[in-house]
Order: sequence, then structure tokens, then C-alpha cells
Amino acid sequence: MSHPLPSDLAYVPFVSVDNMMRLVNTIGIENVIRDLAGYIEADFLRWEEFDKTPRVASHSAEGVIELMPTADKERYGFKYVNGHPKNMKQGFQTVTAFGVLADVGNGYPLLLTEMTVLTALRTAATSALVGKYLAPKGAKTMAMIGNGAQCEFQALAFKALCGIEAVRLYDIDPAATEKAKRNLAGSGLKVTACTTAEDCIEGAEIITTCTADKQYATILTDNMVGAGVHINAIGGDCPGKTELHRNILLRSDIFVEYPPQTRIEGEIQQLDPDHAVTELWQVMRGEAAGRTSTGQITLFDSVGFAIEDFSALRYIHATIAEHPFCERLDMLADPDDPRDLFGMVERRKAGIAA
Amino acid sequence: MSHPLPSDLAYVPFVSVDNMMRLVNTIGIENVIRDLAGYIEADFLRWEEFDKTPRVASHSAEGVIELMPTADKERYGFKYVNGHPKNMKQGFQTVTAFGVLADVGNGYPLLLTEMTVLTALRTAATSALVGKYLAPKGAKTMAMIGNGAQCEFQALAFKALCGIEAVRLYDIDPAATEKAKRNLAGSGLKVTACTTAEDCIEGAEIITTCTADKQYATILTDNMVGAGVHINAIGGDCPGKTELHRNILLRSDIFVEYPPQTRIEGEIQQLDPDHAVTELWQVMRGEAAGRTSTGQITLFDSVGFAIEDFSALRYIHATIAEHPFCERLDMLADPDDPRDLFGMVERRKAGIAA
Repeated sequence: MSHPLPSDLAYVPFVSVDNMMRLVNTIGIENVIRDLAGYIEADFLRWEEFDKTPRVASHSAEGVIELMPTADKERYGFKYVNGHPKNMKQGFQTVTAFGVLADVGNGYPLLLTEMTVLTALRTAATSALVGKYLAPKGAKTMAMIGNGAQCEFQALAFKALCGIEAVRLYDIDPAATEKAKRNLAGSGLKVTACTTAEDCIEGAEIITTCTADKQYATILTDNMVGAGVHINAIGGDCPGKTELHRNILLRSDIFVEYPPQTRIEGEIQQLDPDHAVTELWQVMRGEAAGRTSTGQITLFDSVGFAIEDFSALRYIHATIAEHPFCERLDMLADPDDPRDLFGMVERRKAGIAA
Repeated sequence: MSHPLPSDLAYVPFVSVDNMMRLVNTIGIENVIRDLAGYIEADFLRWEEFDKTPRVASHSAEGVIELMPTADKERYGFKYVNGHPKNMKQGFQTVTAFGVLADVGNGYPLLLTEMTVLTALRTAATSALVGKYLAPKGAKTMAMIGNGAQCEFQALAFKALCGIEAVRLYDIDPAATEKAKRNLAGSGLKVTACTTAEDCIEGAEIITTCTADKQYATILTDNMVGAGVHINAIGGDCPGKTELHRNILLRSDIFVEYPPQTRIEGEIQQLDPDHAVTELWQVMRGEAAGRTSTGQITLFDSVGFAIEDFSALRYIHATIAEHPFCERLDMLADPDDPRDLFGMVERRKAGIAA
């Protein structure tokens, strides 16, 4: 039986994985990362306008499912994200995500989007944005320890935002390094596959660590890290999961997104709870020092914060207005009379206007 | 350019509003409510198996947006729900909702569904399930004060689960009462429209209050409520919003879903924080007394708890296996090699297997 379609109020734009890939390829991956960094920087610069709360995590033996909400006066956003280290062996993604942007004024969702690809992009954009503030001037070479799903995005982000020209790759699994090398072949970056972590960091001014084991690991030991480098530590991002030897942390100036969350999830869970850290938004606003000397080791202890997802949601919402890579989902009930939800359901029986 | 479709892992079943209405009408609204009550009761009976947390609320001047997560060892669920009392005047729903059920083992979503209609159904199912335990034996008449979106669902739920035969309707807006009366005309219930709250509760053994004003209101005053009734208080469900005079609460035995949440959001926010209340799961398990005398006033201070949504998500997930009223959403990135997210995006350019 035919019946009229729901009104416009009932529809929520939905960006599928396929549409996200089309969007990214249409705009260009480096352009998207640059745009995202702009949105993220703009939001970090108005840090005090956001409702901030540590993510809401549900831990199990196998992994974690998290909700990451934040809001300003006009928009509300949240991301659903899981982290299941064992997934990869079973052909599943370690991390999958989706998110919603909503209107604070009436509570209606404005956008539902895949965020597995988008999170990879925003994580890389955040890292490179931070690199712009903290990495040694004129840095040309980045070491990448861990060549998993995040690797190539990081490489392109540091190329686009920080001007690096070469990446050195290392992973305990040589197949991962081969994969990353192949993917970066046409990127304009000089790509070198290395067989040890020591070889990998040779000559690198920036060291990115991005491994996935859910355990205290020591990807970098103290004697490997020379003066003056910037460390971009991505993989230490949940309780019990770190990548760097504690002594490296003690030699570094540490920069974080949101201290209450990073102290639980980041590399600094290895340190005293009152160990000094600098908040990135303060560096961006010029209210705290970033890199102050050439010999200094700067460390971005990245865990990923809800405001970065909020920025990414804002960006996609703005972008689909120009590039409509989206579908419309009939996700919200919209009876003619808001009080007549029951009548809407009843009338659907007869195929009459819902 | 053509390209292969994503693998099955990439798809999440999605129940739109239209499909929810088709599902409900196919199974029958009273059957759905009865089934939902069964799922909710089963979950209340295994209360200790759930991760419980008060909802995560983001308040603004206009309303609230909330995330309500919970999980057992196998399944994780959450609901997004807004509450914006002014929406109705602008043609929007006061409350809209959607929800997700996921697999704790790998973190992958198993279901995305509208929950505006589903929340109305699970709220009514919960009320009537509680009524089965607390309402006077042989109750035949329910007074319904507030004839908005929840009204008819409540009436049918108490018919299906508690055997009531008559409803008496009252709303400050006579048009709402007319709407409810019209919708319930063929339900088998005797429906009486009343012009005052006092008239409405005449002869009723069960009194349901379900109004929407976001303020301390007094829908029922103390002298209106006689001995022996069961009060089903739905509308007092957020900080600063109550419906009953404090003195009624003091004369009642009060039953709640989850005390830490109800003390913030329910009618009992008017009482001392240590005022005695009984948890419903304990009544259902026979570990606490329900109604013990004919003169007793029982009060269900309903605010809606995440476990009820979890039960509803479980029910819909099971039901679409038999009645596939759903679409498949390409919501999860699923590269052939989980580490090759970047390659998946790149290959989409050429229309090669994603």
C-alpha cells in the first residue's frame, strides 16, 4: 500500500563508509586532513566553550566500548567507538566508530556518519597540528613505529601540515610495513622500510609510535631517543596500554589534550598523578610555551578527545552541504501532531499519511 | 564506476520509523507491549548482571540530550534521547530517540533503530509490568492525566497486562483528550473524556500522570488521592520536573527503577535523599514486598532506565530475525586487511574492491 513519505523533519543525513570514501577521494585526502586540522584548531582555541567530560567506557575482557560526548552552546556531538585488540586476527577492525551531530536547541540529530575512516583522519590531523606547534623547525624525516591502520594517514598528515619529506617505517610484522610502503608509493614521500626500531628512528626529527597491543609495552627505550626530537605517541591510549619507557617521559616536556582523561589512558598513567603536563589548547592560544629549545624532547601523549570528533562532525556536516555524499535516513518519528505518536502508528496500518 | 559491495561485516541492520510502524502493526501493538514487558521483566530479574550508570546528560536552556548506556556480559546497548518541552509548539517532537545494540565480544554494532516509537512502547510496557505487581487486585479503571504522546500506549499496556476495562482522560488541553479518545475508540476500552482532574480520578484504582511541562507542577494534590490506589507517575522525569504534591509522596510506598537516577530525576527529588524507596527488581524477585494491604497507596516513580531500553533493543534484534523490517546500513569500515584502512580508501578511487 502506498503512503506519503515522512516530512523533512524525520530525515537525518547519513554518511556511509562508501560515501565517506567518495567524499575523501573527491576533496583529496591531504586537503581533508588540512581542513580537519583547521576545524580542530578552531575548536581548541575556544576550549572553554565546551562541555567536557571523560569518555564513558564499558570495559570487558575482550575490549572496550566507549561513548565520547561533548557540546558547545549550539551543537552536541558524540562518537561510539570500540577497541578490541583481538579483532584483527578474526578479520574484524580493532577500532570501528560512528558518530552523531545534533542541534542543542531542539535535540534533533543533524548528521549520522561512519567514523572509522573519519577517526583515522582526525587522529592524523590532530597529530600533525600538534606537530606544527612542537616539532623541530625544518623537520624533514618522521619515523613510524607501528604500521597498522593509522600509519599512512599520519604520514600524509605530517607531509601536508609539517612539510616532512621522508618516512621511515618499522613494524614487528614486516607485512604491515610492506603494506604501508606500497600505499605510500605515490604520495611524494621518500619511504624507507626498516627492520628494527633502532634503524627506523635513525635521523628522524619526529618519532610517531602507533602500535595496538593492549598491554604495557616498551616500543621505545630510553637510550634510543636523542635530544631535540618530537615524539608523537598515539598507541598508549587506554588503561594498561603504554608504548614508551617511563624514563623517556621523565626527560620530555609532555603535552596533552585533556589531562583528566590522559592521566587515565595515556603514557602518563606511568607517572605520578601530579606530574606537570601542558594543555595543547593553551599552547595554541599562546598562553603556554611549546618548544623552547632545540635540545628539548617534546612529547604529545595522544589519546584522542571528544572535541576532535566534534570538530570532525562539524566538518563533515558543513562539507556534505557542498558535496552531498549522503543518504537520508528515516530515523525520527514525525507525526503531524507531535502528541499523536500513537495515531501515526495506527494510520500506518491503512497506508494513510503517517 | 562499479565496485564490489562491502562484505557482510560492514552492514548494520537499521530499523527506520516506517519499518518500526510496520513491525508493530504486523505483530499487533498489544502483543508487542506484552512481549516487551516479558523482556524487561527477564532483565530486571537478572539485575546484578548489568553495568549500571546514571545517564550522561547534556543540559541546555532549551532542554537535554542524554546517552543511556548499559551492558551485560554479551550485549551492550545505548539510547540517544532528547527532551525539549518547547519543541511541540514548533512542530517538533518533545522526545526523539534512537538506539544501538552491540556485541561486547568484538564491539561491532548489531542493530541501529529508531526509538521514539519504541521508547513509547517500552515505557508503557514497564508501567503496566509494574502495575501487575503493585496495582490493586481486580482494578478495572485507570485515570490518565496528561493525554500527550504516551497516553494511548499506557492505556493499551494496562489493558493488555493488567486487565483494565476503562480509561478516564483529562488534559489541560481538551484537544489532546479528544485525540486520545478518538485513537482509543476501537480499542475495546471504555473511554471517558473528563474536564477536570478531580472528575478524571473518580472511581479509578490506577492513576497515571503523564504531563510534559518542564517545571515543578502539581497535577495531583494531596486531598485528591484516596486510600488504596496505585499511582503510575511518568512525567516527573528530570531535575526540576515533578507532578505530585510532596504530601502524596509522604503517604505512599514508593517504588523505583534505579535509586541513584530516580533521586535526581524523579518525584522523590522533593524528598530527603535518604527517604526509603523500594527497588522494583527486588519486588519482582520476591525479595521485597510490593502491595501489602488494600488501603496502601503504591507509587511507581518512573523515570525510565537504560536497562528497559536494553530489553527493547534485544527484543527488536530478535524480532527482525523473523520479521525483517529493516534495511542494511554500510556503517562500518571493513577492509580486506583490517590494517589496510588507507588502502581501502585509496582503492575506492579507482572503483576497485573496497
